[in-house]
Amino acid sequence: MKILVLGGCGTLGSAIVSQLKEKNRSYEIITAGRKTGDVHVDMTSKESIEAMFAKIGNVDHIVNAAGSAEMKPIEDLTQDDLKFSINSKLLGQVNMVLIGSKYLNEKGSISLIAGVIKDELIKMGTMYALTNGAVAAFARAAAFDIKKNIRINCISPSVLDESMVEYAEYFKGVKSVPAAKAAKAFIDVIESDVNGQEIKVY
Amino acid sequence: MKILVLGGCGTLGSAIVSQLKEKNRSYEIITAGRKTGDVHVDMTSKESIEAMFAKIGNVDHIVNAAGSAEMKPIEDLTQDDLKFSINSKLLGQVNMVLIGSKYLNEKGSISLIAGVIKDELIKMGTMYALTNGAVAAFARAAAFDIKKNIRINCISPSVLDESMVEYAEYFKGVKSVPAAKAAKAFIDVIESDVNGQEIKVY
Repeated sequence: MKILVLGGCGTLGSAIVSQLKEKNRSYEIITAGRKTGDVHVDMTSKESIEAMFAKIGNVDHIVNAAGSAEMKPIEDLTQDDLKFSINSKLLGQVNMVLIGSKYLNEKGSISLIAGVIKDELIKMGTMYALTNGAVAAFARAAAFDIKKNIRINCISPSVLDESMVEYAEYFKGVKSVPAAKAAKAFIDVIESDVNGQEIKVY
Repeated sequence: MKILVLGGCGTLGSAIVSQLKEKNRSYEIITAGRKTGDVHVDMTSKESIEAMFAKIGNVDHIVNAAGSAEMKPIEDLTQDDLKFSINSKLLGQVNMVLIGSKYLNEKGSISLIAGVIKDELIKMGTMYALTNGAVAAFARAAAFDIKKNIRINCISPSVLDESMVEYAEYFKGVKSVPAAKAAKAFIDVIESDVNGQEIKVY
Protein backbone atom coordinates (compact mmCIF):
# COMPACT_ATOMS: atom_id res chain seq x y z
CA MET A 1 0.00 0.00 0.00
CA LYS A 2 1.39 3.35 -1.13
CA ILE A 3 0.85 6.36 1.12
CA LEU A 4 1.73 9.96 0.25
CA VAL A 5 2.34 12.17 3.30
CA LEU A 6 2.35 15.87 2.44
CA GLY A 7 4.30 17.86 5.00
CA GLY A 8 5.83 14.53 5.99
CA CYS A 9 8.94 16.16 7.46
CA GLY A 10 7.10 18.51 9.83
CA THR A 11 6.31 17.80 13.51
CA LEU A 12 2.97 16.15 12.81
CA GLY A 13 4.02 14.65 9.46
CA SER A 14 7.05 12.92 11.02
CA ALA A 15 4.84 11.44 13.74
CA ILE A 16 2.44 10.12 11.09
CA VAL A 17 5.29 8.60 9.07
CA SER A 18 6.89 6.89 12.07
CA GLN A 19 3.56 5.44 13.24
CA LEU A 20 2.79 4.15 9.75
CA LYS A 21 6.19 2.46 9.61
CA GLU A 22 5.74 0.88 13.03
CA LYS A 23 2.25 -0.28 12.14
CA ASN A 24 3.06 -2.08 8.94
CA ARG A 25 6.46 -2.50 7.37
CA SER A 26 4.95 -3.21 3.97
CA TYR A 27 3.54 0.31 3.70
CA GLU A 28 5.39 2.26 1.05
CA ILE A 29 5.59 5.82 2.34
CA ILE A 30 6.42 8.85 0.21
CA THR A 31 6.95 12.19 1.94
CA ALA A 32 6.37 15.43 0.07
CA GLY A 33 6.88 19.08 0.88
CA ARG A 34 7.72 22.41 -0.68
CA LYS A 35 11.40 22.04 0.14
CA THR A 36 11.70 18.79 2.07
CA GLY A 37 10.71 15.15 1.59
CA ASP A 38 11.14 12.51 -1.09
CA VAL A 39 9.39 14.69 -3.68
CA HIS A 40 8.86 18.42 -3.80
CA VAL A 41 5.50 20.00 -4.54
CA ASP A 42 3.77 23.36 -4.47
CA MET A 43 0.22 22.41 -3.54
CA THR A 44 -1.16 25.70 -4.84
CA SER A 45 -0.03 24.82 -8.37
CA LYS A 46 -1.96 22.37 -10.54
CA GLU A 47 1.13 21.85 -12.68
CA SER A 48 3.34 21.10 -9.69
CA ILE A 49 0.87 18.56 -8.28
CA GLU A 50 0.56 16.85 -11.65
CA ALA A 51 4.34 16.77 -12.03
CA MET A 52 4.64 15.13 -8.60
CA PHE A 53 2.18 12.38 -9.46
CA ALA A 54 3.85 11.86 -12.84
CA LYS A 55 6.98 11.07 -10.80
CA ILE A 56 5.50 8.88 -8.06
CA GLY A 57 2.54 7.32 -9.88
CA ASN A 58 -0.84 6.51 -8.35
CA VAL A 59 -1.15 6.13 -4.59
CA ASP A 60 -3.62 4.48 -2.21
CA HIS A 61 -3.81 7.19 0.42
CA ILE A 62 -3.03 10.89 0.56
CA VAL A 63 -2.45 12.41 3.97
CA ASN A 64 -1.92 16.13 4.40
CA ALA A 65 -0.09 17.59 7.38
CA ALA A 66 0.99 20.80 5.61
CA GLY A 67 -0.26 24.37 5.45
CA SER A 68 -0.39 27.40 7.69
CA ALA A 69 -2.17 30.73 8.06
CA GLU A 70 -1.18 34.17 9.24
CA MET A 71 -1.63 34.94 12.94
CA LYS A 72 -2.18 38.66 13.40
CA PRO A 73 -4.69 41.00 15.00
CA ILE A 74 -7.51 41.44 12.49
CA GLU A 75 -6.71 45.17 12.31
CA ASP A 76 -3.25 44.38 10.93
CA LEU A 77 -4.21 41.81 8.28
CA THR A 78 -3.24 42.89 4.76
CA GLN A 79 -4.50 41.63 1.40
CA ASP A 80 -1.24 39.66 1.16
CA ASP A 81 -1.90 38.00 4.54
CA LEU A 82 -5.34 36.95 3.30
CA LYS A 83 -3.89 35.58 0.09
CA PHE A 84 -1.10 33.70 1.86
CA SER A 85 -3.46 32.11 4.39
CA ILE A 86 -5.99 31.01 1.80
CA ASN A 87 -3.35 29.66 -0.55
CA SER A 88 -1.36 27.80 2.07
CA LYS A 89 -4.00 26.38 4.41
CA LEU A 90 -6.99 26.10 2.06
CA LEU A 91 -6.36 26.07 -1.69
CA GLY A 92 -3.54 23.55 -1.53
CA GLN A 93 -5.81 21.11 0.25
CA VAL A 94 -8.69 21.70 -2.14
CA ASN A 95 -6.29 21.04 -5.02
CA MET A 96 -5.21 17.81 -3.40
CA VAL A 97 -8.82 16.63 -3.67
CA LEU A 98 -9.58 18.14 -7.11
CA ILE A 99 -6.35 16.98 -8.73
CA GLY A 100 -4.93 14.37 -6.34
CA SER A 101 -8.11 12.28 -6.45
CA LYS A 102 -7.36 11.49 -10.10
CA TYR A 103 -4.12 9.79 -9.02
CA LEU A 104 -5.72 7.89 -6.16
CA ASN A 105 -6.47 4.19 -6.52
CA GLU A 106 -10.08 3.05 -6.03
CA LYS A 107 -10.98 2.57 -2.35
CA GLY A 108 -8.23 4.99 -1.42
CA SER A 109 -8.58 7.94 0.92
CA ILE A 110 -7.62 11.60 1.28
CA SER A 111 -7.19 13.07 4.75
CA LEU A 112 -7.07 16.84 4.99
CA ILE A 113 -6.15 18.86 8.05
CA ALA A 114 -8.13 21.65 9.72
CA GLY A 115 -7.70 22.42 13.41
CA VAL A 116 -9.20 23.42 16.74
CA ILE A 117 -9.33 27.15 15.95
CA LYS A 118 -12.96 27.78 14.97
CA ASP A 119 -14.49 25.70 17.79
CA GLU A 120 -12.12 27.43 20.15
CA LEU A 121 -11.37 31.09 19.46
CA ILE A 122 -8.07 32.80 20.14
CA LYS A 123 -6.81 36.31 19.65
CA MET A 124 -5.17 36.81 16.21
CA GLY A 125 -6.83 33.59 15.02
CA THR A 126 -9.23 34.85 12.32
CA MET A 127 -7.29 33.40 9.38
CA TYR A 128 -7.08 30.00 11.10
CA ALA A 129 -10.80 30.05 11.92
CA LEU A 130 -11.63 30.97 8.32
CA THR A 131 -9.45 28.30 6.73
CA ASN A 132 -10.30 25.58 9.27
CA GLY A 133 -14.01 26.24 8.81
CA ALA A 134 -13.58 26.09 5.05
CA VAL A 135 -11.53 22.88 5.02
CA ALA A 136 -13.83 21.00 7.41
CA ALA A 137 -16.95 21.93 5.43
CA PHE A 138 -15.26 21.25 2.09
CA ALA A 139 -14.05 17.78 3.11
CA ARG A 140 -17.57 16.69 4.09
CA ALA A 141 -19.11 18.13 0.93
CA ALA A 142 -16.40 16.66 -1.31
CA ALA A 143 -16.92 13.17 0.15
CA PHE A 144 -20.63 13.59 -0.56
CA ASP A 145 -20.20 14.84 -4.12
CA ILE A 146 -17.29 12.88 -5.57
CA LYS A 147 -18.18 9.95 -7.85
CA LYS A 148 -14.97 7.96 -7.53
CA ASN A 149 -15.01 5.24 -4.87
CA ILE A 150 -12.67 6.99 -2.46
CA ARG A 151 -13.04 8.43 1.04
CA ILE A 152 -12.41 12.05 2.02
CA ASN A 153 -12.08 13.19 5.63
CA CYS A 154 -10.59 15.99 7.66
CA ILE A 155 -8.65 15.73 10.90
CA SER A 156 -8.82 18.71 13.27
CA PRO A 157 -6.15 18.49 15.92
CA SER A 158 -5.66 20.95 18.73
CA VAL A 159 -2.34 22.77 18.88
CA LEU A 160 0.45 20.22 19.39
CA ASP A 161 2.33 19.88 22.68
CA GLU A 162 5.50 20.09 20.61
CA SER A 163 4.46 23.46 19.16
CA MET A 164 3.60 25.04 22.49
CA VAL A 165 7.21 26.11 23.11
CA GLU A 166 6.81 28.50 20.21
CA TYR A 167 3.06 29.20 20.28
CA ALA A 168 2.03 29.07 23.96
CA GLU A 169 1.30 32.81 24.09
CA TYR A 170 -1.12 32.52 21.16
CA PHE A 171 -2.99 29.48 22.48
CA LYS A 172 -3.69 30.64 26.01
CA GLY A 173 -6.45 28.46 27.50
CA VAL A 174 -6.35 25.88 24.68
CA LYS A 175 -5.47 22.34 25.77
CA SER A 176 -2.68 21.02 23.54
CA VAL A 177 -2.33 17.38 22.38
CA PRO A 178 0.77 15.26 21.67
CA ALA A 179 1.70 14.98 17.97
CA ALA A 180 1.53 11.19 18.43
CA LYS A 181 -2.16 11.42 19.39
CA ALA A 182 -2.99 13.63 16.40
CA ALA A 183 -0.98 11.32 14.13
CA LYS A 184 -2.94 8.28 15.33
CA ALA A 185 -6.16 9.88 14.05
CA PHE A 186 -4.68 9.95 10.53
CA ILE A 187 -3.64 6.29 10.75
CA ASP A 188 -7.08 5.30 12.11
CA VAL A 189 -8.74 6.97 9.12
CA ILE A 190 -6.53 5.11 6.65
CA GLU A 191 -7.29 1.78 8.33
CA SER A 192 -11.05 2.31 8.74
CA ASP A 193 -14.08 2.98 6.54
CA VAL A 194 -14.70 6.49 7.88
CA ASN A 195 -15.93 8.89 5.19
CA GLY A 196 -17.06 12.53 5.08
CA GLN A 197 -16.17 13.19 8.71
CA GLU A 198 -14.31 15.80 10.67
CA ILE A 199 -12.29 13.91 13.29
CA LYS A 200 -11.54 16.19 16.21
CA VAL A 201 -8.45 15.58 18.34
CA TYR A 202 -8.89 18.15 21.12
CA MET B 1 -29.16 55.65 11.47
CA LYS B 2 -27.28 54.94 8.25
CA ILE B 3 -27.40 51.38 6.89
CA LEU B 4 -25.41 50.08 3.91
CA VAL B 5 -27.00 47.10 2.18
CA LEU B 6 -24.60 45.31 -0.17
CA GLY B 7 -26.47 43.38 -2.83
CA GLY B 8 -29.44 45.57 -1.92
CA CYS B 9 -31.11 45.09 -5.32
CA GLY B 10 -31.11 41.27 -5.23
CA THR B 11 -33.98 39.06 -4.04
CA LEU B 12 -32.83 38.97 -0.43
CA GLY B 13 -31.36 42.47 -0.44
CA SER B 14 -34.64 44.02 -1.67
CA ALA B 15 -36.54 42.22 1.08
CA ILE B 16 -34.09 43.57 3.67
CA VAL B 17 -34.40 47.12 2.32
CA SER B 18 -38.21 47.07 2.25
CA GLN B 19 -38.44 45.68 5.81
CA LEU B 20 -35.97 48.30 7.07
CA LYS B 21 -38.08 51.06 5.47
CA GLU B 22 -41.29 49.69 6.93
CA LYS B 23 -39.70 49.34 10.34
CA ASN B 24 -38.38 52.84 10.71
CA ARG B 25 -38.75 55.68 8.27
CA SER B 26 -35.80 57.54 9.77
CA TYR B 27 -33.36 54.83 8.67
CA GLU B 28 -31.15 56.14 5.89
CA ILE B 29 -30.57 53.20 3.56
CA ILE B 30 -27.84 53.00 0.93
CA THR B 31 -27.84 50.10 -1.48
CA ALA B 32 -24.62 48.94 -3.13
CA GLY B 33 -23.76 46.40 -5.77
CA ARG B 34 -21.33 45.69 -8.55
CA LYS B 35 -23.63 47.15 -11.16
CA THR B 36 -26.80 48.10 -9.31
CA GLY B 37 -27.73 50.22 -6.29
CA ASP B 38 -27.07 53.75 -5.08
CA VAL B 39 -23.29 53.17 -5.18
CA HIS B 40 -21.21 50.66 -7.09
CA VAL B 41 -18.51 48.56 -5.46
CA ASP B 42 -16.28 45.60 -6.21
CA MET B 43 -15.99 43.95 -2.80
CA THR B 44 -12.86 42.04 -3.84
CA SER B 45 -10.99 45.32 -4.31
CA LYS B 46 -9.64 47.30 -1.33
CA GLU B 47 -9.49 50.43 -3.51
CA SER B 48 -13.09 50.07 -4.67
CA ILE B 49 -14.36 49.62 -1.09
CA GLU B 50 -12.40 52.64 0.08
CA ALA B 51 -13.71 54.71 -2.84
CA MET B 52 -17.28 53.74 -1.91
CA PHE B 53 -16.88 54.84 1.70
CA ALA B 54 -15.17 58.05 0.58
CA LYS B 55 -18.41 58.74 -1.29
CA ILE B 56 -20.98 57.70 1.32
CA GLY B 57 -19.06 58.43 4.55
CA ASN B 58 -19.24 56.40 7.74
CA VAL B 59 -22.24 54.15 8.36
CA ASP B 60 -23.85 52.54 11.42
CA HIS B 61 -24.56 49.12 9.99
CA ILE B 62 -23.26 47.07 7.07
CA VAL B 63 -25.45 44.27 5.78
CA ASN B 64 -24.26 41.92 3.08
CA ALA B 65 -26.66 40.02 0.86
CA ALA B 66 -24.22 39.60 -2.05
CA GLY B 67 -21.91 36.88 -3.30
CA SER B 68 -22.20 33.52 -5.02
CA ALA B 69 -20.19 30.38 -5.69
CA GLU B 70 -19.89 27.96 -8.57
CA MET B 71 -22.25 24.96 -8.57
CA LYS B 72 -20.63 22.07 -10.44
CA PRO B 73 -19.74 18.44 -9.85
CA ILE B 74 -16.41 18.40 -8.03
CA GLU B 75 -14.86 16.57 -10.97
CA ASP B 76 -15.57 19.55 -13.25
CA LEU B 77 -14.32 22.34 -11.00
CA THR B 78 -11.48 24.33 -12.56
CA GLN B 79 -8.93 26.62 -10.91
CA ASP B 80 -11.00 29.53 -12.26
CA ASP B 81 -14.15 28.16 -10.56
CA LEU B 82 -12.25 27.97 -7.28
CA LYS B 83 -10.98 31.50 -7.67
CA PHE B 84 -14.39 32.88 -8.63
CA SER B 85 -16.15 31.20 -5.69
CA ILE B 86 -13.60 32.31 -3.12
CA ASN B 87 -13.48 35.87 -4.44
CA SER B 88 -17.22 36.33 -4.74
CA LYS B 89 -18.64 34.53 -1.71
CA LEU B 90 -15.69 34.75 0.72
CA LEU B 91 -13.03 37.41 0.12
CA GLY B 92 -15.50 40.22 -0.52
CA GLN B 93 -17.09 39.58 2.86
CA VAL B 94 -13.75 39.34 4.64
CA ASN B 95 -12.80 42.68 3.07
CA MET B 96 -16.04 44.20 4.30
CA VAL B 97 -14.87 43.40 7.84
CA LEU B 98 -11.18 44.25 7.37
CA ILE B 99 -11.79 47.50 5.49
CA GLY B 100 -15.46 48.30 6.12
CA SER B 101 -15.04 48.19 9.90
CA LYS B 102 -12.87 51.32 9.68
CA TYR B 103 -15.84 53.23 8.24
CA LEU B 104 -18.31 51.89 10.77
CA ASN B 105 -19.44 54.08 13.65
CA GLU B 106 -18.87 52.79 17.20
CA LYS B 107 -21.61 50.38 18.35
CA GLY B 108 -22.34 49.56 14.73
CA SER B 109 -22.63 46.08 13.25
CA ILE B 110 -21.59 44.04 10.24
CA SER B 111 -23.79 41.15 9.11
CA LEU B 112 -22.26 38.69 6.68
CA ILE B 113 -24.08 35.95 4.80
CA ALA B 114 -23.27 32.25 4.69
CA GLY B 115 -25.98 29.65 4.00
CA VAL B 116 -27.49 26.25 4.69
CA ILE B 117 -25.06 24.35 2.44
CA LYS B 118 -22.51 22.87 4.84
CA ASP B 119 -25.04 21.70 7.44
CA GLU B 120 -27.06 20.24 4.60
CA LEU B 121 -25.12 18.74 1.71
CA ILE B 122 -26.20 18.80 -1.90
CA LYS B 123 -24.69 17.50 -5.11
CA MET B 124 -22.46 20.09 -6.81
CA GLY B 125 -22.36 22.07 -3.58
CA THR B 126 -18.66 21.84 -2.57
CA MET B 127 -17.87 25.49 -3.30
CA TYR B 128 -20.88 26.65 -1.27
CA ALA B 129 -19.95 24.36 1.63
CA LEU B 130 -16.38 25.64 1.57
CA THR B 131 -17.29 29.33 1.45
CA ASN B 132 -20.19 29.05 3.91
CA GLY B 133 -17.98 27.17 6.38
CA ALA B 134 -15.31 29.82 5.99
CA VAL B 135 -17.63 32.81 6.40
CA ALA B 136 -19.43 31.41 9.45
CA ALA B 137 -16.15 30.60 11.23
CA PHE B 138 -14.57 33.91 10.21
CA ALA B 139 -17.49 36.01 11.46
CA ARG B 140 -17.31 34.42 14.94
CA ALA B 141 -13.53 34.78 15.10
CA ALA B 142 -13.60 38.36 13.82
CA ALA B 143 -16.15 39.39 16.47
CA PHE B 144 -13.87 37.83 19.08
CA ASP B 145 -10.68 39.47 17.81
CA ILE B 146 -11.66 42.97 16.72
CA LYS B 147 -10.86 45.79 19.16
CA LYS B 148 -13.38 48.37 17.91
CA ASN B 149 -16.71 48.38 19.72
CA ILE B 150 -18.76 46.88 16.90
CA ARG B 151 -20.67 43.63 16.44
CA ILE B 152 -20.00 41.05 13.72
CA ASN B 153 -22.40 38.22 12.89
CA CYS B 154 -23.30 35.92 10.07
CA ILE B 155 -26.76 34.96 8.84
CA SER B 156 -27.14 31.54 7.21
CA PRO B 157 -30.42 31.29 5.34
CA SER B 158 -31.64 28.21 3.54
CA VAL B 159 -32.29 28.54 -0.18
CA LEU B 160 -35.03 31.13 -0.75
CA ASP B 161 -38.54 30.18 -1.87
CA GLU B 162 -38.14 32.82 -4.55
CA SER B 163 -34.99 31.13 -5.90
CA MET B 164 -36.48 27.65 -6.08
CA VAL B 165 -37.96 28.30 -9.54
CA GLU B 166 -34.41 28.42 -10.85
CA TYR B 167 -32.60 26.17 -8.35
CA ALA B 168 -35.10 23.47 -7.30
CA GLU B 169 -33.17 20.72 -9.07
CA TYR B 170 -30.01 21.59 -7.12
CA PHE B 171 -31.70 21.81 -3.72
CA LYS B 172 -33.61 18.55 -3.75
CA GLY B 173 -34.66 17.70 -0.19
CA VAL B 174 -33.69 21.09 1.23
CA LYS B 175 -36.56 23.06 2.80
CA SER B 176 -36.61 26.58 1.38
CA VAL B 177 -37.56 29.73 3.31
CA PRO B 178 -39.26 32.96 2.19
CA ALA B 179 -36.89 35.88 1.50
CA ALA B 180 -38.95 37.90 4.01
CA LYS B 181 -38.08 35.43 6.79
CA ALA B 182 -34.36 35.51 5.94
CA ALA B 183 -34.50 39.32 5.72
CA LYS B 184 -36.06 39.54 9.19
CA ALA B 185 -32.98 37.83 10.65
CA PHE B 186 -30.80 40.67 9.33
CA ILE B 187 -33.11 43.32 10.80
CA ASP B 188 -33.23 41.45 14.16
CA VAL B 189 -29.42 41.50 14.30
CA ILE B 190 -29.28 45.25 13.64
CA GLU B 191 -31.83 45.93 16.37
CA SER B 192 -30.36 43.57 19.00
CA ASP B 193 -27.07 43.12 20.86
CA VAL B 194 -26.22 39.78 19.20
CA ASN B 195 -22.49 39.40 18.54
CA GLY B 196 -20.22 36.65 17.18
CA GLN B 197 -23.12 34.40 16.21
CA GLU B 198 -24.20 32.41 13.18
CA ILE B 199 -27.96 32.91 12.91
CA LYS B 200 -29.49 30.00 11.01
CA VAL B 201 -32.70 30.51 9.06
CA TYR B 202 -33.51 26.98 7.92
